[in-house]
Amino acid sequence: MAEANALPLVELAEQFAKLPGIGMKTAQRLAYFVMSMTAEEAQAFADAIVKAHSTVHCCKVCQNLTDKEVCPVCEDDSRDQGTICVVESPKDVSAFERTREYKGVYHVLHGLISPIDNITPDKLRIRELLDRVNGGKVAEVIMATNPTVEGEATAMYISRLLKPLGIKVTRLAFGLPIGGILEYADEVTLYKALENRNEI
Amino acid sequence: MAEANALPLVELAEQFAKLPGIGMKTAQRLAYFVMSMTAEEAQAFADAIVKAHSTVHCCKVCQNLTDKEVCPVCEDDSRDQGTICVVESPKDVSAFERTREYKGVYHVLHGLISPIDNITPDKLRIRELLDRVNGGKVAEVIMATNPTVEGEATAMYISRLLKPLGIKVTRLAFGLPIGGILEYADEVTLYKALENRNEI
Repeated sequence: MAEANALPLVELAEQFAKLPGIGMKTAQRLAYFVMSMTAEEAQAFADAIVKAHSTVHCCKVCQNLTDKEVCPVCEDDSRDQGTICVVESPKDVSAFERTREYKGVYHVLHGLISPIDNITPDKLRIRELLDRVNGGKVAEVIMATNPTVEGEATAMYISRLLKPLGIKVTRLAFGLPIGGILEYADEVTLYKALENRNEI
Repeated sequence: MAEANALPLVELAEQFAKLPGIGMKTAQRLAYFVMSMTAEEAQAFADAIVKAHSTVHCCKVCQNLTDKEVCPVCEDDSRDQGTICVVESPKDVSAFERTREYKGVYHVLHGLISPIDNITPDKLRIRELLDRVNGGKVAEVIMATNPTVEGEATAMYISRLLKPLGIKVTRLAFGLPIGGILEYADEVTLYKALENRNEI
């Protein structure tokens, strides 16, 4: 292989290949692309990796990623600090923020309960959620995990911990997606849409 | 956006988005993945970028990428230094090396003549090729550029420079790809296969 002419290039390709969704062929193409950058661009790329990794950590309140001690959402007094939306990952927070409608705060679990993958409740940020709730002032906890086996199990597990504390625990609505076509909806979605029908 | 909670994360995603074939959505996913690495892994990734960029350069003979002054292929006495295979990019050298059949050496042009993209012959490593040929000992130059307009034009341009020097200039054979199906071959490929037919 020509890459063997340049070991550092092979090593860089191997680093790219560790990233999700990037195979060895794409990794080599990316490594060659780095070679076409200027020295400043390559340095900026490397610095961005180290800087993001060293300065970004979990918000001590909601566990979302932030480069501050407490994230802007948790510090924002205009947001309803009494409503907590519980999500699996920081990506889900982005999704809710894009709706521009949710005015409460979040709690990021960093995973879902999945015994088959050896992810037990103690590996998630559930204790931190209980601490927030025990601190009072929390009126409602919205379980916003995915409608999958793991998502449902996690929602059920947490709701059973919270309900004895007198907290209102809700779950996202399931039904037809907006813009979706009834004919193509799966049976479970259609059943949920029927079951949760609303008066108009 | 939750990413706005962590500016370094946005900046890292922007760096990933500069890579070819990686959109903003994938870039964000990669940035989140970097966050899940250990500090050592993130540092190793960053170091690999800087190291590859700072230590890898063009072989002073064949212009292929290498971290040495002269690449292993050019230094290898067991290879036929009198046969030069001229290719567009270092990736093409990898492709030929994978065949394990070619025993000559290479010359990497780092591009193809393309007036529409403002790539004129003086921007390619053609002068370096002429210097090698003028140095004597070169018996054959194989033009191994792609069978595209730019590849053909570059092959023609270089062959016209070399022929007056009494060098044998050859071109890769074009025909049906092995394992290909005749029915699906395009007209030009089929015509070339017919034109260049060999006695069996």
